[in-house]
Amino acid sequence: MSGKKVLIVYAHQEPKSFNGSMKQVAVEELSKRVHEASMSDLYTMNFEPRATRNDVTGALSNPEVFKYGVEAYEAYKKKALTSDILEEQRKVQEADLVIFQFPLYWFSVPAILKGWMDRVLCQGFALDVPGFYDSGFLKDKLALLSLTTGGTAEMYTKAGVNGDFRYFLWPLQHGTLHFCGFKVLAPQISFGPEVSSEQKRKVMLSSWVQRLKSIWKEEPIHCTRSWYFQG
Amino acid sequence: MSGKKVLIVYAHQEPKSFNGSMKQVAVEELSKRVHEASMSDLYTMNFEPRATRNDVTGALSNPEVFKYGVEAYEAYKKKALTSDILEEQRKVQEADLVIFQFPLYWFSVPAILKGWMDRVLCQGFALDVPGFYDSGFLKDKLALLSLTTGGTAEMYTKAGVNGDFRYFLWPLQHGTLHFCGFKVLAPQISFGPEVSSEQKRKVMLSSWVQRLKSIWKEEPIHCTRSWYFQG
Repeated sequence: MSGKKVLIVYAHQEPKSFNGSMKQVAVEELSKRVHEASMSDLYTMNFEPRATRNDVTGALSNPEVFKYGVEAYEAYKKKALTSDILEEQRKVQEADLVIFQFPLYWFSVPAILKGWMDRVLCQGFALDVPGFYDSGFLKDKLALLSLTTGGTAEMYTKAGVNGDFRYFLWPLQHGTLHFCGFKVLAPQISFGPEVSSEQKRKVMLSSWVQRLKSIWKEEPIHCTRSWYFQG
Repeated sequence: MSGKKVLIVYAHQEPKSFNGSMKQVAVEELSKRVHEASMSDLYTMNFEPRATRNDVTGALSNPEVFKYGVEAYEAYKKKALTSDILEEQRKVQEADLVIFQFPLYWFSVPAILKGWMDRVLCQGFALDVPGFYDSGFLKDKLALLSLTTGGTAEMYTKAGVNGDFRYFLWPLQHGTLHFCGFKVLAPQISFGPEVSSEQKRKVMLSSWVQRLKSIWKEEPIHCTRSWYFQG
């Protein structure tokens, strides 16, 4: 257990938020156990979400017609990606587990975190063709989405107004994390902290801390469509 | 048919791309029919995707603990949102149909377009509580996702490696557009233009143009979970 490294990719503007507390208790718990926990605090970093020509230093492979995916792939191979991407790739490479801590925006991640996924998880680094899903390049790593919702748990059930929460996890857990090879641990969903009592928020925080104490013993979910759509 | 207004929200870096062509033929076809087509060319605008305190001009409602959703809602009511958001909201308000033209990034929209959704479709403008899904504030408008994929159509079937394409549309069409009240037209999916022949790309472009000729006669999809998961 000791020696394991964790990267927390954190996307909330406010340290005093519930998301901020979830991040903070995770850092404290993981540090106790001599894990190294590195952090990408995206808003504090003012992380760039836009995938543009600026992500490639030096000349483009094809300056006539800009294709982001192609240029990022070529730049990865030539070590010509911009430094903020390289730094995030280094952190991912060193991590045994990547935890994403964020509030759900429109059934997905906030744009700043979407930009992290778009830019950091490029071809060559996270995958290749072939070399995706179970043979994705990050296949020796674990990933875990820890998120908060505005709505209650009842709203995110099969019969609820927002449908089962697993539905919105498909593009993130399967289409992104699994695509890159990550083994996906069960999501940590804190439903409606803003509409919950202080007592309930404390329970959500402490259940997260409890979970982290034995996180390395967990088995990944079986990340196939039946987990999402036939539960 | 004349007098209808269309907003195209376009998220590709390269005018010479297939996405650029899809946008261009749409503008040309719509203009022929005396529709007004306005455009949000997000990369050219260098549109800001990050949801931050900068989105609110003047004092915050609660400067001690920043809550983006609450502050954006209050700022909307006080007309204190930053000008780029106001401008986009004005374009949406004037449109009868909003077309989103983008390449699929990680089973979703590119971060720059996610940021448009996160920032423009705020509480007060697009919805309230209550006032979402069928009573969302944009309920008299149509929306349509026109997207390109990297993979082939076969990959996006129920039995395919990426699952049915409807799965990844759930957070976008249901969780975002329908949530705001939009009636959703069937998506225009151009599968794998980069791995297709020039001839096939031309067919994809011309089928889009053909579709636009009678777009106002289309019935929206029935945007409930059965469309997505029991097709």
